[in-house]
Order: sequence, then C-alpha cells, then structure tokens
Amino acid sequence: MSILVLGTVALDNVRTPYGERNKLLGGSAAHFSMSSRLFTKVSLVATVGEDFPQRHIDFLQQKGISLASLIRAQGKTFQWSGEYKGDLNTAVTLNTELGVLASFKPKLSEEQKKIKYIFLANVDPDIQGHILPHLSSPKLIVLDSMNYWINTKRKSLLKVLKKVDIYVANDQEARSLTQEDNLIRAAKRLRSFGPPMILIKKGEHGVLFYSDKFIFSLPAYPEDKVVDPTGAGDTFAGGFMGYLAKAKTVNAQNIKKALAYGTIAASFNIEGFGLERTAKLSMKDLDNRLAEFRRQVLF
Amino acid sequence: MSILVLGTVALDNVRTPYGERNKLLGGSAAHFSMSSRLFTKVSLVATVGEDFPQRHIDFLQQKGISLASLIRAQGKTFQWSGEYKGDLNTAVTLNTELGVLASFKPKLSEEQKKIKYIFLANVDPDIQGHILPHLSSPKLIVLDSMNYWINTKRKSLLKVLKKVDIYVANDQEARSLTQEDNLIRAAKRLRSFGPPMILIKKGEHGVLFYSDKFIFSLPAYPEDKVVDPTGAGDTFAGGFMGYLAKAKTVNAQNIKKALAYGTIAASFNIEGFGLERTAKLSMKDLDNRLAEFRRQVLF
Repeated sequence: MSILVLGTVALDNVRTPYGERNKLLGGSAAHFSMSSRLFTKVSLVATVGEDFPQRHIDFLQQKGISLASLIRAQGKTFQWSGEYKGDLNTAVTLNTELGVLASFKPKLSEEQKKIKYIFLANVDPDIQGHILPHLSSPKLIVLDSMNYWINTKRKSLLKVLKKVDIYVANDQEARSLTQEDNLIRAAKRLRSFGPPMILIKKGEHGVLFYSDKFIFSLPAYPEDKVVDPTGAGDTFAGGFMGYLAKAKTVNAQNIKKALAYGTIAASFNIEGFGLERTAKLSMKDLDNRLAEFRRQVLF
Repeated sequence: MSILVLGTVALDNVRTPYGERNKLLGGSAAHFSMSSRLFTKVSLVATVGEDFPQRHIDFLQQKGISLASLIRAQGKTFQWSGEYKGDLNTAVTLNTELGVLASFKPKLSEEQKKIKYIFLANVDPDIQGHILPHLSSPKLIVLDSMNYWINTKRKSLLKVLKKVDIYVANDQEARSLTQEDNLIRAAKRLRSFGPPMILIKKGEHGVLFYSDKFIFSLPAYPEDKVVDPTGAGDTFAGGFMGYLAKAKTVNAQNIKKALAYGTIAASFNIEGFGLERTAKLSMKDLDNRLAEFRRQVLF
C-alpha cells in the first residue's frame, strides 16, 4: 500500500551543540518520506521555490520518492531557522520564512487520489482540510500539526481533526490544545475533539498512544549522541505509517509494532544533521536496532 | 531474603491540586517499606521524635515492618513540607525541619547486620556510609540520595557511591551530579563514579537502567489521576528491591522484571496522599496491573 504525504519541503538552518548547518534539505514531508520509503512507495505533495537546488530534487528521486506533485512555484522556498540547547529536547525557532508556502494550493493526480494511507504533515490546517474531499477511498488519515497553527488557526485545526483517524501531537502541543497538564487526560480530551486515535510524541521520553480500547506507551530508544533532532517527529510518523501501510491492517498488534518502528526510525534521525543519517538507512538497520530495543524494553 | 532499609520516617505536609494534608506519615524508609513488604520481610532503620504519634508505629507494625531499629529520640520528628503544581512531576520544597534527624546515629542489631539486601534511602551520605562497615555479608547495596546532599555533601556522597552496587537518582539529580544533559551520558558518568549499575527515575516518563552490559528503559504506567507523587521514587525502589530480594538472583532478566514491579508500585503510590493507597495494596493488585502494563508496552 502506498502512502500520500502532504507537507513541507524546506531549507533548514540549524544550530545545535554539535555545530551549525545552513540550507539543509528539510521539512515535514521530506523527513516523513525518508523513513516511510523503507516500507512502501511514497508520493509527496509539497511546494518549493525557484531557489530550490536541483540536487535536492535529484536526491529525493534517487531515494524512490514520487515527486509528481512537488510544485516549483514563483518565490522562495520555505525556510526554518532554529536552535537546540541543553538536552536538545526543544527547538527554539529563530526565524520562519513561509515563501511559496503562503500561497500553496496542493493538487493531486488521479493516481494520488486513490491512495489509501494519508499523512497530513505539518502545514496550514486549511491546506490539510483542502485535499480531504479529493481522496476517493482513504483507509487511514493521520494528521500532525504544530503550536503555530494551534495558536493562529485553532478553529480550522479543530474542524479538520474531526475528519482524521489519528492525531499526532507532541506533548507541548497536546497540553496547549487541551489545557490539560496530565498527558493521559490531554489524550482523552483530544479524543473528544474527534480523532479515534491519539498519538502523543514526548521526544526523549518516548511516545503515548491512546484510543478508547487501548493505551500503549513506549520509551525512546536510549541515545547518547543527539546531533540534531529536527524532523524526528516526522521521521517517527514515517516509520509508524510505513509499517501500518505495509502491514495493511490497522489493529492493536500492528499499531504497537508501528510505534516501535517509528521510535527506531526517529532514533537514527537525531544522530545526524538533517537527512544525513536517514538517507543512508536500510530496513536491516531498522530491524537490527528494533531487536536491541525489544531487549531493552521487554520484561 | 529480607531487606534492610535505612532512611527517614517523617511527618509530611503536602499541597497538591487535589487538596492539602498535614502531618501525614511519610519519609523515604516508610514509603520504601510499604511496597517492599509485599515481597519480603523488611527491617527499618530510622529515627523519630517524641511528637511521633503511636498510631503510626502501630500502623507500620501491623503492616509487618520490623521496627527494632526505629529510634525514638529527644526532639521533633523530621518534617517535610512541599507543594506540587501543573503536571505534578516536580515537588517544590516549602520547608524542611530536620529535628532528630540532625543527630541520627543508626544502630543495627546482630540480626540486621546479616541482612543481604540493603537500601540506603535518602539521608545524609555520612549516615549512609556509617552503617556499611557493620554489614557482615551484603549481596546488593542500593543507594538513593537527593539534590540537597549533592549540593551540600558532594564529597561524602561520592565516597559512599564507590561502595554501592546500584545508585538510584532522579533525572534532575543525575544531571546535577554529572553536569550532563543527556541522560545516557549522565548514566555513563555516574557509572564512572563507582556503582556498577545506575538507575535513573524520570517520574511520569519512566525509568532508565544502565550498566556496562545492558541498558533497560521503561515508560511509566499511564496514570490520569496523580493525587500526590510524594514517595513515588521510594515506592518504586521498594517494588524494585522487593522483587530482587524475593528472586534471590540479581541478573538481567530479574532486573527488568524488578523495574516493572517498581513502576507498578509507584503508579499506585501517586493515586492517593501519603501511604493512603499503598497501605491497602496487595500482591494481587500489583500483578494485575503488571499484566495490563505488559500489554501496553510489549510489541
């Protein structure tokens, strides 16, 4: 089963205790694709500007990612500048330049409209909502967002949340949208907004999955070299959805294993700047580390 | 195998979003005993003052805890006053009155000197070090401390750390003692201070176990009603050591299961003020929730 991902392809400027990198290939859709591609075919819907280097396009295509709906528009590519300090668990956004993202109108091909696994990565919730009516038979719609939209487009976000199967949020976002400090209570409240399944990412503290029928919880893979966490959440989502799309059935057992694959994919992402580490990743790397993780967690 | 616990028996004044309680029976040794007693015999070494209510002594004895070395001294019982806000993950200490703890000199009976499983709960590291030469054949010595001693008696703490098998710290303490933000690196650094095994408690985020041979990681049990987290760390340690003492062998498999029992014991502790919930706890309660936790974690 292939996956359709709507999101951003960006140029990132990142500063961490390990160094500084400028105009790295990044963005939610790029990070998501880099892990999900290991499981299944991935079709990317995003926009870039005239300044976007051709080598990045070549690179994404080499990785097997379908770019039929990557629109090159007049203007500048979306740029995000951020910095990580201390335990690198939280990014401080230094600057955001929307560029071509401000006028992005995604268009799906007839083939893309038939895709059943949909990841609405972090973009304007109006854009996320815009593509939903065009999907002919979605089986699993997963949505991610961020504090910026919670604060500026709360109504639009709440509206689109009613139409998705899984809402993926980080702990800060979950608390901010629900005003609940306790994450289980926050998850229950998010559930009441519509999505039957809630996935809360806690960075170095792992992940919590909530539905009316079951709760799952996993720690993060213990990692002592966190070089750059940018994109870890999207890489997680890519591993998670990649496994579910490949498994073809969304049930408790597969969701648990998908959470573990997401966790492992994210653990590789943070070991290098940008897509440096995940670009080289193989399914064997994932499986080896998954086996180690299983030994660390099972009791 | 019985357990010897050296620590505090206190009167706690606690304020949380669920209410306020004064002069609750508390202290590191009391909380530790209330969970470890479910696994094995527990002998408590501590001191209380003239003001300590007889009903608390009766209560501890009813729970099967040996109080042969609970010294009633001239002066006041150790009192801790604290408050929890927000996600209740961190206590704000409002006041500490050492009372009789300031001149505490623990004395062990001949029988207690032969006990093989030793928990040095949070007290002055000099007092912790003081009892070690009197132990005739310890098999497992576990030590807990707190920021107060890290800041005021760092040298004494580092000295006693060389003589223990497991150092138990919370995440803040581990970071403060090592100046490392990343918890795996903090654990490695703590390992270099002497103890072959390091156990880092992360509150609502679970627990991390580090040794040269293996790393284990568990999330916390998902809990949506956190009434009072006071003593959760000691309750965790009680479940952890209780299981190890009962299992009689300290190996990787037993350590993992002990971490899970500690996690479950702590999850009950936070559901009520003080010892309210753990006083009523049975081994069956622990086992039932452990089975549920296993389903939430295993993939």
